[in-house]
Amino acid sequence: MNPTITAFKASPDRGRGLARDLRVRWALEEVGQPYDVRLVTFAEMKAPAHLAVHPFGQIPTYEDGGLALFETGAIVLHIAERHPGLLPDEPAARARAIAWMFAALSTMEPPIVERGMAGLLERDKPWFDARLPMLDERVHARLSQLSDRLGGADWLDGAFSAGDLMMVTVLRRLEPTGLLEAHPTLVAYSARGQARPAYQRAFEAQYAVFVAASAG
Amino acid sequence: MNPTITAFKASPDRGRGLARDLRVRWALEEVGQPYDVRLVTFAEMKAPAHLAVHPFGQIPTYEDGGLALFETGAIVLHIAERHPGLLPDEPAARARAIAWMFAALSTMEPPIVERGMAGLLERDKPWFDARLPMLDERVHARLSQLSDRLGGADWLDGAFSAGDLMMVTVLRRLEPTGLLEAHPTLVAYSARGQARPAYQRAFEAQYAVFVAASAG
Repeated sequence: MNPTITAFKASPDRGRGLARDLRVRWALEEVGQPYDVRLVTFAEMKAPAHLAVHPFGQIPTYEDGGLALFETGAIVLHIAERHPGLLPDEPAARARAIAWMFAALSTMEPPIVERGMAGLLERDKPWFDARLPMLDERVHARLSQLSDRLGGADWLDGAFSAGDLMMVTVLRRLEPTGLLEAHPTLVAYSARGQARPAYQRAFEAQYAVFVAASAG
Repeated sequence: MNPTITAFKASPDRGRGLARDLRVRWALEEVGQPYDVRLVTFAEMKAPAHLAVHPFGQIPTYEDGGLALFETGAIVLHIAERHPGLLPDEPAARARAIAWMFAALSTMEPPIVERGMAGLLERDKPWFDARLPMLDERVHARLSQLSDRLGGADWLDGAFSAGDLMMVTVLRRLEPTGLLEAHPTLVAYSARGQARPAYQRAFEAQYAVFVAASAG
């Protein structure tokens, strides 16, 4: 039996691969693990059956035999721990790769999401233009630090890892804003991640959901 | 040799234990691992020696022999993986406890930090009062979901775990706002965490830094 993940039946990103199921799809593709997908509507996400697996009513979830898991970071880590290819074997390098996963999710992503949410929900507010430079500056500060650390390397710490997978998908969330363009090192890093065959298979799989939904 | 963590020489929270070193201290106390602390100034946090360990110039860091680690979540997970007491042995329960660590850091904490930052940095702005209900509502929505899941249980999933440790410290960040008071289940949960002897030893240790700095 393959593991089953959940994804949006109608993703608000219209097939751009910015929803978090892409992260789990990519991880599964990197390790060569086939998977099944159960698509959920927004109403289903907030219903008791889904909330029993995901207390915050979101996607993705991951179910495999007796295990039902939520939180993208935990799901990707679970996959990375059980298959070779996403974490180094050497203990210190493994711990550092996991640190980059947490850095992507708890240091980089919050100001990126805050900037994105303001653009979606407060664009028509009288304060939007006044607050935007502050929000952009918070994002640029993090991007500069990340760019400084990456330097001329291909990946954040040695070989490609689950930390890079998570970071590239977090950086992709900036695409609607154009903010990444000021950091060419990171533009190249993100492109390097997206050039991986496993990424492309994951992207195509989520895009096919959008195409099917549009045709329906 | 004990592991060495870093903490603020002069914490902006003035001894209230809201800085992230408390999370690592608490984890180390739960597993009975003695540790050393190196206090750093804000200038030192942004200097090359610290940035070599922490690319984003923050505290805490964790150094143990050849391993230098950043990101509180990664540090606490590293401690929990190497000592009994913070993660269940059973694989599915272990994965769920780790999911709660990620939930604390990437689902609960961002709206809590966003609300806190607005209170600190935008209180004198003309839009502060107009935006506050929206920020509060985002926090309350997450707190309600967390409260629903916790229900009458003592901890989030079976025995106390690193997931509870992280969640309680995230909820404590709401103390200056009073927002937690509307969720009595979570008030009791947070108090339950803070009643643990390991928490109290961790709190006292960071408080002693504040007292010493104040006396100096």
